[in-house]
Parts: sequence; C-alpha cells; structure tokens
Amino acid sequence: MIYLDTSATTPLLPKVRDAMLRLMDESISCKLGNASSLHSAGSRAKFALNEARTEIAKYIEVPPLELIFTSSGSESNNTIIHTFEHCPIIVSAIEHPSVLYAAEAYGDPFIKIPVDERGIINLNFLKTKLEELTKDNPRQKILVSIMLANNETGTIEPVEEVSALIKIFKDKGYRNIFLHSDATQAVSKIPVNIKKLGVDYLTFTAHKLGGPVGISALYIRAGAPFKSLIIGGAQENKRRAGTSNVILAAGFAAAVSYCQEKNVLDNYQKVRVLRNYLAQRITKILPDAKIITPLEENLSLPNILNVAFPYAEGESTQLYLDLEDIEVSTGSACASGDLEPSHVIMAMYHDAEIAHGSVRFSLPLDITKAKLDQLLTKLPSIVTKIQDLSTLNKAKS
Amino acid sequence: MIYLDTSATTPLLPKVRDAMLRLMDESISCKLGNASSLHSAGSRAKFALNEARTEIAKYIEVPPLELIFTSSGSESNNTIIHTFEHCPIIVSAIEHPSVLYAAEAYGDPFIKIPVDERGIINLNFLKTKLEELTKDNPRQKILVSIMLANNETGTIEPVEEVSALIKIFKDKGYRNIFLHSDATQAVSKIPVNIKKLGVDYLTFTAHKLGGPVGISALYIRAGAPFKSLIIGGAQENKRRAGTSNVILAAGFAAAVSYCQEKNVLDNYQKVRVLRNYLAQRITKILPDAKIITPLEENLSLPNILNVAFPYAEGESTQLYLDLEDIEVSTGSACASGDLEPSHVIMAMYHDAEIAHGSVRFSLPLDITKAKLDQLLTKLPSIVTKIQDLSTLNKAKS
Repeated sequence: MIYLDTSATTPLLPKVRDAMLRLMDESISCKLGNASSLHSAGSRAKFALNEARTEIAKYIEVPPLELIFTSSGSESNNTIIHTFEHCPIIVSAIEHPSVLYAAEAYGDPFIKIPVDERGIINLNFLKTKLEELTKDNPRQKILVSIMLANNETGTIEPVEEVSALIKIFKDKGYRNIFLHSDATQAVSKIPVNIKKLGVDYLTFTAHKLGGPVGISALYIRAGAPFKSLIIGGAQENKRRAGTSNVILAAGFAAAVSYCQEKNVLDNYQKVRVLRNYLAQRITKILPDAKIITPLEENLSLPNILNVAFPYAEGESTQLYLDLEDIEVSTGSACASGDLEPSHVIMAMYHDAEIAHGSVRFSLPLDITKAKLDQLLTKLPSIVTKIQDLSTLNKAKS
Repeated sequence: MIYLDTSATTPLLPKVRDAMLRLMDESISCKLGNASSLHSAGSRAKFALNEARTEIAKYIEVPPLELIFTSSGSESNNTIIHTFEHCPIIVSAIEHPSVLYAAEAYGDPFIKIPVDERGIINLNFLKTKLEELTKDNPRQKILVSIMLANNETGTIEPVEEVSALIKIFKDKGYRNIFLHSDATQAVSKIPVNIKKLGVDYLTFTAHKLGGPVGISALYIRAGAPFKSLIIGGAQENKRRAGTSNVILAAGFAAAVSYCQEKNVLDNYQKVRVLRNYLAQRITKILPDAKIITPLEENLSLPNILNVAFPYAEGESTQLYLDLEDIEVSTGSACASGDLEPSHVIMAMYHDAEIAHGSVRFSLPLDITKAKLDQLLTKLPSIVTKIQDLSTLNKAKS
C-alpha cells in the first residue's frame, strides 16, 4: 500500500505510541491522575503535562507559558478568531475552513485577501484594507490570519512580509493589529521561527507530524488579546477549560522530539527532490496535466504536490488509485459529501474545471522513488480512462 | 496505594488500552487514516468511528445520529450553553464550572437556582422564574441546565421533575424552553434513560467511566436548537469541526461496553454499601464530622462521600492522606491554586467553615472494606492533628 495522504493525517510514530502506552499503563495502575488534582497521582500528571509543554515550546523557541494545548487545529484556530468577535478579521482566501468559516461568523467586517495563481496573497490588497480600517479609528482592533502554508497546494505564504507590513502600521501608532498564522501543515516541513515570523498567535497540530489526533498547540504571545473558547476550569493557565490531556500531550512531545532527533527538516529536503521528480514525470507522461503547486523551494512545502488533470474528476482519480492501494486526496471532496470545487483552487484559478480535476499527493517522510514509479505506472491509464469517459459523456449530452 | 478520587478521573480500563492500541498500530501501518478521507484508510477510520458512536448511543438508548463527540465534558457543556447566547439561561447553583461560568458569560439573564442542604434544587424557584420569563413573551427561547448528579457531593438532581415542569409550560404554549443535563458523573453509576429524563441535551464523558481523557459524548435531540462551538469542517454531521478522534472514540466505546458486560450498574450497589459503611464509621470515630452527601439511595450516586471536618482544612487532610498513599480530593481546591471555598458546599450551607473542611472520597468499582478500614485507621489522627493545630492557631490569634 502506498499512502500519499500525510497532509490529511500522518501515520503515528512507533515512538509516540510507546510514550502514550507508558502513561496509559500508569493510568491503569492509578499512578497517573487528573493533572488538576493535588495528590501524588495528580502531581505526576501535571509534571508530565508540563514536561510535554516544555519540549514542544522549545521546538518553536517560545516560553512554555505562551503555549496552550487544545483538542485540534480547528479548535486553536477558532479560539483566536473568536477572540476577535465583532472586530475586522482579514484572512487569505485559501485558509483552512476552520479559519475561513470562523472568520466569516465572527468578523465584522470579514475580509478575504485574494491570491494569485501560485496561491500567494496580494499584499497590496492587505495594505489598502488596513489603511481603510484604521483611517477613522487608529485604535481599531484588527485580526489578520494568514496560514504559513496551504494544506491543499503546499503554497508558503509571505507571513514575514505581512508582519513587516503590520509593523509599519504599528510604528505609525495603529497598535491594535494582531497576526495569527495557521502553521498546521508547515511545522516540521520548513523552519518555523516565531520571532522571525513576528506573529502574535500560531497554530500547529500533533497528527500532522507523527503525533496523535486530538491535540494541538496554540502559541499566544504574552500580552496579546485572548478570550477562552471553552470556559470553566482553570486548566492551561485559565485559558482552556477541560481535563488536561496528559497522554496525548506526551504523544505530541514524543513526535516533536523525533522531529528534532531525526533531523526531519533535512530529510524533507530529500522528499522535495522526489516531489519534484513526481511533478516532472507527470508533466512528461500526461502533458495536459496542470501542476498547481508552485515548485520553487521558497514557495511550497517539500511534501505536497497538487496537480489538476483536465476532464478527470479528482474523486474518480482518487477512487481508481485507491483500488490500486494508492491513497491520495482531492481538495474538492469533503466529508459532507457535497462536491463543491475546492475553494483554494478556485481562488487561484477561478476555474471549476481545474478545481474539479485536482488531486493532492502528500508524501510521507519515507517516500521512495520506487513507490513513486509504482504510482507513475498506474496514473496515466487511470487518468486517461476517466478523461475518455468524461469526453464521451460530454459528447453524448 | 488507595485511590479514592475516581470522580476526578477513573483509571483507564485495560480493555480500553487494548482497543486503542489496536487502532494505534493500524495508524502506524497506514491502515487507519483521517475519517474524512475518501480512500480505504479513511473509510476504515470512518467505520471505526461510527461503530464506536453506535455502541455508545445504544448504551443511553438514543439514535447514533443524535450523538456527537467532543473533546471533553467542558466542551460539550460549553457548546450547548453557547447555543443559547443572549437567551435566558437557568442553571442550578451547584453546576460544574463549565456550565456555571459559560452560563454567566452567555446567558441574558443568567439565573442560578438555589439548592437546599442536600444540594437539591428549588423547583418552585425554577417555576416562578419560568413564569416571569414567559409572561410577556410566550416564544422566549430559554435554556435550563441541571446536572444529573453533582461532582462534589454526588447529589442526584430531580431532572425528571424539571422536565415534567417544562412540559407543563410547553402544554400551555411556551414551546421554546429546552433542557440540558450534565450527566458526566452519573452515567455508569445510576441508570440514565434519555426518554425518561426528557432532556433535549445530555453530556457525558469517557474518563469518568474507565475510558480515555479527551473525548465526550453530547446527545442533541433531533430538532433541538444547535450552534457549533468549533466551526469549519463537516465532521460530526457538520456539528463539530476538527479531525475525528477515532482512537479515543474506540476507547470510549470499549469502556461503555465494559460497563454493560460487567453489570457495572449492579456492582455500584456494592460500592454504595461500602460508601455507607464509610460514612457510618466516620460519624462514629469523628463525631463532629458532618456528612455532606445525602445518603438516601435515590438522592446520591453510590460512589461519592463528601464529609466536612470542622476546623480541618480539606487541603490539609488531603495532603496528609496523600503522605499515607491515600488519594482523595476536596471541593475547595482548584487547579488555579486559589483557595476559594467550594461553590457547591457554599450553596448548600452558606458556611465557609464547612466548605473549607470538606473532603470528597470517590470510590472505585473495586473498593473493598479492607481498603476503607485502612483509610479509617489513618483518618482520625490526621483530622485531629489538623484540628488541634487549627485550634492552637486560633487561640494564639
């Protein structure tokens, strides 16, 4: 089986399983309690939780107290967007739905920044909007949320330039503009340095880097506005109620420590070479294929290749490949079962045909040329078959 | 070690660990994907998720589609309270903080129902409030949230009577009154029948019945108002965004199936006998101890005993017992480290001295008389020592 859908979820690392299993066994024998309890079982849990937090905070070089755990990237994103309820919220047109729909629900106004065909935001548009919003009210509280890398295409956004732009506004006295970045896909694939990025908030998630589903980290710069989404207990330094998930936190930390020890960042450079090889071969074998992902090194993550095959519905390509035990995804399908074209590809190309034909290959760390060659022997006949059927159908109608 | 803090978190059941481990291994080998993905690894995850949902729904006899997973009881409670933002929200004075503080944040107005010394709500107060709120506006949308059993004292609330009262209002044409119950402590300890309870929403949570931390079930009656707290993806029938936590859901289902197979409800009747024995012995050995939990069978959960020792700070009793490897909790301590007296005991007794002296023993299923006797040999000298110190301190000042 060839799993090329690591952007949806990465396989769990054995080391992560072992770390969680150790604590699960401590829970079974009553040695690990609720981290909020004051007795020994509680203290052990609290200690393990803070150890995990410290490990993860170190990875992105922030103080542990500025990092909270939530249950998912979606929750982390929603938490920050919800903090700016009734304020202007400006996001890129290609954000993850948990940013996009939350911003639409809570932003007043809600502003989408258009992107070019590479998926990169229009910085001038952002500048103009910030000028408009601050003109009559220099103290206007504004949230800008720009993902570090897109989940469907791998496009890397110029977050540093956004924060430089915001700094210009701040230097002019407009001090209430804040920047969030959803780095869920980026962390472990490219260097992520909070200081360099200049963000106030950052989201990233365990199950995109070998950790368990169900835990996400949210960086909140000390002093930045914050409103809890889940209210009640005093957990997470009073920022997120709910029993602390010590076991998943330990799994997250084990995944992060694997990334550091095994030089995962460097290894992804080898993945990049193979990713580019795949793109090159596809272009050669299927000349009408359109490479959506910008392949330049500083413009995309190393592990994602998004390709549109004209007149071949992405879902069909996906399903035929699945029959060959090759697992990929499309941007245009979603769990709801409706077949809306991907909002990401639509924002880039404004062309439903391209969007419907797009397929995402997201490569695991241990991808090999041999596996890609296997894919490449199956892909052309599948795509051509779907295209033929589709052309036939069109001719008939 | 004697762990008497199962109301904070139960030890994980070995069966639950095994169920999760099986899926963790499938994730390691790329057989278990993201439940929203359309390929085989995704389908397997979706199947496992729905299997877990069906098992849990069967346990409380509701259709699986009316049950969603969230990350915690706090999230489930917050989700329902947030659904009624800007509406009148009426809760008992002794709700869990995730109901109480959320209702305070979102309710307009926010109304607390007083309780008597047993912790039982004043139904007449509720009736009067409902009359006032519906008088000028028969279509007023109102949420009533009454826990099924209290986490600090074990007091069982008359939720059936509350729903009968609401029904009287509905029969008069006031159709927009909805009822939520936080059954986090009750499920697996006493029979919970949604139809009999007559609730529109119910919260319960895996790690209070042997399952993992990080997953909760929220029952939402078909047709009842609902607003997502975490917006974005289409997971959970478009009701809760965030990658589905298949592994924790399977752990939750394994815990529920253990409860069914092992007749946990019946076994708790033996726990009740031992709980009552403990209460009786404490009253005998420490005559000034005040039993807070109402011991009548229909008035409290079988596993909780809350006792106040006058002039013996609960935290001190807890810490001294911990030194003897006996783990209990207090209602008055909280993770924040501030020593506010328990809002539950205060609502019952309006007496900070009693609240500060209260200790909660929450017994595990495998509790034995021998273990309680061990506790009973240590407890008197500890309590008396603390009382003596406290009396000395008082005499000095």
